[in-house]
Amino acid sequence: MRATETESAAVQDFYPDDAAHCYGCGRLNPAGHRFQTRAAGEESVTEFEPDAVHTALPGFVYGGLIASLLDCHSTGSAAIFALAREGVAMGTGEAPRFVTRHLAVDYLAPTPLGPLRAIGRLLEATDRKVIVESELDADGAVTARARAVLIRLESAPGPT
Amino acid sequence: MRATETESAAVQDFYPDDAAHCYGCGRLNPAGHRFQTRAAGEESVTEFEPDAVHTALPGFVYGGLIASLLDCHSTGSAAIFALAREGVAMGTGEAPRFVTRHLAVDYLAPTPLGPLRAIGRLLEATDRKVIVESELDADGAVTARARAVLIRLESAPGPT
Repeated sequence: MRATETESAAVQDFYPDDAAHCYGCGRLNPAGHRFQTRAAGEESVTEFEPDAVHTALPGFVYGGLIASLLDCHSTGSAAIFALAREGVAMGTGEAPRFVTRHLAVDYLAPTPLGPLRAIGRLLEATDRKVIVESELDADGAVTARARAVLIRLESAPGPT
Repeated sequence: MRATETESAAVQDFYPDDAAHCYGCGRLNPAGHRFQTRAAGEESVTEFEPDAVHTALPGFVYGGLIASLLDCHSTGSAAIFALAREGVAMGTGEAPRFVTRHLAVDYLAPTPLGPLRAIGRLLEATDRKVIVESELDADGAVTARARAVLIRLESAPGPT
């Protein structure tokens, strides 16, 4: 299933099929979270509502889900920013697939269970490497910040 | 269910009940991963075998699970190192519960699906804060490294 080719389409809908099985963000992994990252002006946005089981201490989201969301959000954001940098409209072909080299998360406050919104900004880009800074909004507050270094995948498989 | 009171018991078995629901490492979260972290000499060890669905690109573990494992491994390690620092044997009471303030992960190489082993070392400790450095071994290679700053939870709820 592909989204319409608008700015609000999810970049994960355009990952190559063989790079679309990620538990976090793969559209072809029915067991996973299927995070979706969209362009929003010069920023990127991933919205997700965790399940009640994704708890840390009761009522709060566990740190692993937050890291996972910010990780896939960052790889998706890198693809969005790379397309924009190259002047390629999303959906005109396959989206580039980035993998994570480094992810640093600052947990600023407990994140309440409920709708989450990760917002990404481009810090730096070359053809091969993109650095993305993100914040996580929950219930009107920024509860986490992340900085991720993403590497463009050419053909060999790699982690994310 | 509590492990026997030996050095090889999992520290998560001694978290207070109201801090044992974490999706990553809570013994009271039946839907979660239930990571278990044990003392091993001056180090700490968390072993886990991801499910086939926890894929990144086919055959490899997705980065969010790696971050999640290293996160809970680090909070567990902080508790183990705090007990050792205070000369308290594990299982003589409740274990201290640490939450994550900062987690940085370097993904060095794709992590193949299969048994994983996180090994932690104490970098720094005060009564309130512990810094843990970890590496992730998969199939004989170190595929990720992490540095985590953990804060001891007194009574108010917080994330991890």
